[in-house]
Amino acid sequence: MAVFDRITIVGLGLIGGSLGMAIRRKGLAREVVGFSRKPSTLREAKRRGAIDQGTTDARAAVDGADLVVLATPVDLIVPYARRLARSMKPGSILMDVGSTKAKIVAALDRGLNRQVAFVGAHPVAGSEQRGIAAADAALFDGSVCILTPTAKTRPAALRAATRFWRRLNMRVVIMSPAAHDQALAAMSHLPHALAFCLAGAISATSLPQTPRSFLDMTRIAQSDPELWDDIFLSNRRSILAAMDRFTTHWRRLRGTLSRGDRRALRAALVRANARRDALS
Amino acid sequence: MAVFDRITIVGLGLIGGSLGMAIRRKGLAREVVGFSRKPSTLREAKRRGAIDQGTTDARAAVDGADLVVLATPVDLIVPYARRLARSMKPGSILMDVGSTKAKIVAALDRGLNRQVAFVGAHPVAGSEQRGIAAADAALFDGSVCILTPTAKTRPAALRAATRFWRRLNMRVVIMSPAAHDQALAAMSHLPHALAFCLAGAISATSLPQTPRSFLDMTRIAQSDPELWDDIFLSNRRSILAAMDRFTTHWRRLRGTLSRGDRRALRAALVRANARRDALS
Repeated sequence: MAVFDRITIVGLGLIGGSLGMAIRRKGLAREVVGFSRKPSTLREAKRRGAIDQGTTDARAAVDGADLVVLATPVDLIVPYARRLARSMKPGSILMDVGSTKAKIVAALDRGLNRQVAFVGAHPVAGSEQRGIAAADAALFDGSVCILTPTAKTRPAALRAATRFWRRLNMRVVIMSPAAHDQALAAMSHLPHALAFCLAGAISATSLPQTPRSFLDMTRIAQSDPELWDDIFLSNRRSILAAMDRFTTHWRRLRGTLSRGDRRALRAALVRANARRDALS
Repeated sequence: MAVFDRITIVGLGLIGGSLGMAIRRKGLAREVVGFSRKPSTLREAKRRGAIDQGTTDARAAVDGADLVVLATPVDLIVPYARRLARSMKPGSILMDVGSTKAKIVAALDRGLNRQVAFVGAHPVAGSEQRGIAAADAALFDGSVCILTPTAKTRPAALRAATRFWRRLNMRVVIMSPAAHDQALAAMSHLPHALAFCLAGAISATSLPQTPRSFLDMTRIAQSDPELWDDIFLSNRRSILAAMDRFTTHWRRLRGTLSRGDRRALRAALVRANARRDALS
């Protein structure tokens, strides 16, 4: 059963494209409209079954939509939202799927067309791959979607958003925008910073084949720089705090190794083992 | 065609067990003998096809062997080598498969029974899994084996070792022990240190599901602490140098983010992308 009559997806990259494919596969909308600045992306999105129709005119794309999902890079979400809300129909819902939430939610909680209800969302799924070519209808299956309502969020819009993500086979979790950003800084943005740093620090290597450990630890350093400089900058404070906590542990590990303290070193590795094992 | 009449493997963990399975599958020895301190490991090794026969008596295990492979944790290699060389037959070869080479090779290049030829080897394969239960006949397939001969290495033994690893479908590369240890510090030991540190620094997380980036970046933190404190300590100087080079880049990345310098941040991420892409 369709949850919405028309859903418009603004931005047809890995996330927007996968979302369109999943919505269409599950029949959550009578029609999925896509916006991209590139006609070639629209053609590919249509060919892959991510949208029913597409346009390079963003205002035309949101015309008549019951739900508009902003799936652009993080720093374009607020400008697009402000520009498009005026063209959205009364009673419709605007949702973003950005990886950082505090700045976006603070900006969009106020200043939008009053007839449009905003909900901040972050489906925690993705990969180092990019673009509509990597889109996958199963990308969200079984993962968590974090919704970040505030006192200003309309309860009916939050309920509709919850139903929507659940129908996409996601587990919906409610967090404050600030708590979301701190948790993601520690568990996603920090690992990305480490991977980018490790890959960037490669000097000429004399090994004819890169060990699997190094390849695994730098896989996410293949992520799109244009997406990630936005994410880093838009969640700067929480990421700096996470980096500093890591650095404290890093200095301690270095000291332990430098002293040749086998007992403390063993204890650090055993603790790492145990904490990793405890993750779900 | 068998390359050796009898091969003895000392230590039947992931590496020793996989090696036995590969040797037997490829028919590189008429007989594979295994040593472990634990009878249960010997039984499992035999059941899995890693050895023809096993014993908990190390000296009996090496008796009559043409090739003895030391596949124990790194810090047991030198003591076992010294103890067992006396029981080895004249003209036989002793090879270790430790992940660090300088200390081991320096210790074993002198002081062994003169009738035994030592060759240092490091088949660069493995995983975070442990023990004979994780052994895999295909573990070495298509990977690199680094041999670290010195001026004291007997040319005939080096040739035999080269043939042996090639027959196991490995690409053989010759490096000095010091160059090996520096390269592995940068490309394997540093990533492991980062993973252990990241996993050990986990504080209570409010996320109901751990992002894939975090799981990937800490997968190798599941590696065996008993193996890894040895590796870290036996290659301490090179690893500290690699950690310090990483820390320099890490401080720079933090500074860039702290200043909010989008241009420098983008450049750092683009460089990381490019260096990662260039890896083979």
